[in-house]
Amino acid sequence: MSKSELPVIGQDDQVACCSPMVREPLGEEDAVDLAKMFKALSDPIRLRLLSLIASYEGGEACVCDLTGPFDVSQPTISHHLKVLREAGLVGSERRGTWVYYWVLPAALARLSSLLQAPAVAEPAGAVR
Amino acid sequence: MSKSELPVIGQDDQVACCSPMVREPLGEEDAVDLAKMFKALSDPIRLRLLSLIASYEGGEACVCDLTGPFDVSQPTISHHLKVLREAGLVGSERRGTWVYYWVLPAALARLSSLLQAPAVAEPAGAVR
Repeated sequence: MSKSELPVIGQDDQVACCSPMVREPLGEEDAVDLAKMFKALSDPIRLRLLSLIASYEGGEACVCDLTGPFDVSQPTISHHLKVLREAGLVGSERRGTWVYYWVLPAALARLSSLLQAPAVAEPAGAVR
Repeated sequence: MSKSELPVIGQDDQVACCSPMVREPLGEEDAVDLAKMFKALSDPIRLRLLSLIASYEGGEACVCDLTGPFDVSQPTISHHLKVLREAGLVGSERRGTWVYYWVLPAALARLSSLLQAPAVAEPAGAVR
């Protein structure tokens, strides 16, 4: 199947995929599942790795491209990539010498939809 | 200022607020800042608390309403609320006996925009 035949994941799908947490309280099971994904995002290097992969030309990046921008060792990068993969945020495939990574759009869309902000600002009289 | 005079935070503002991480790689400082917010979301009880507050009638909840649904002690709930507040995800105010909490829409919008998924699906030949 060529890339052009793959379905496009658009804004509508994102909204349809998950209710924003402002609309209805999260269930226990969903919360456990989502917390694992957020935990994978709770490290600055993993966030930058995910962003780097996602913004790469063609939407995927070779692990050989992902070490340069960081001041940490290759095994550390590999560990962080493993955490992102196990959280279901990126997919990967070995091709010859290198492993290639890409972001899984449905996972990002799920989190993005969940965090959609309420349509009105905070209550009157709010003090911070 | 009454609630009806407060600005409405809409979809357009969310998009304007932050670039999705798929569009450009995250900088180091932003990543550190955002990782702290995601860390606050990396616990199932905190996720459910945030969702409970956000979906409360009127957009705010008394701490007295937030203990019932959870099988943990009041001090534990208070600790989790403190983490959410320190991460900039909720605001709070004491009124008489009780503290009231509300979600800060700009913080949720920032994270939601950041996680907007790429418009195309994963590369052809992707193996999971």
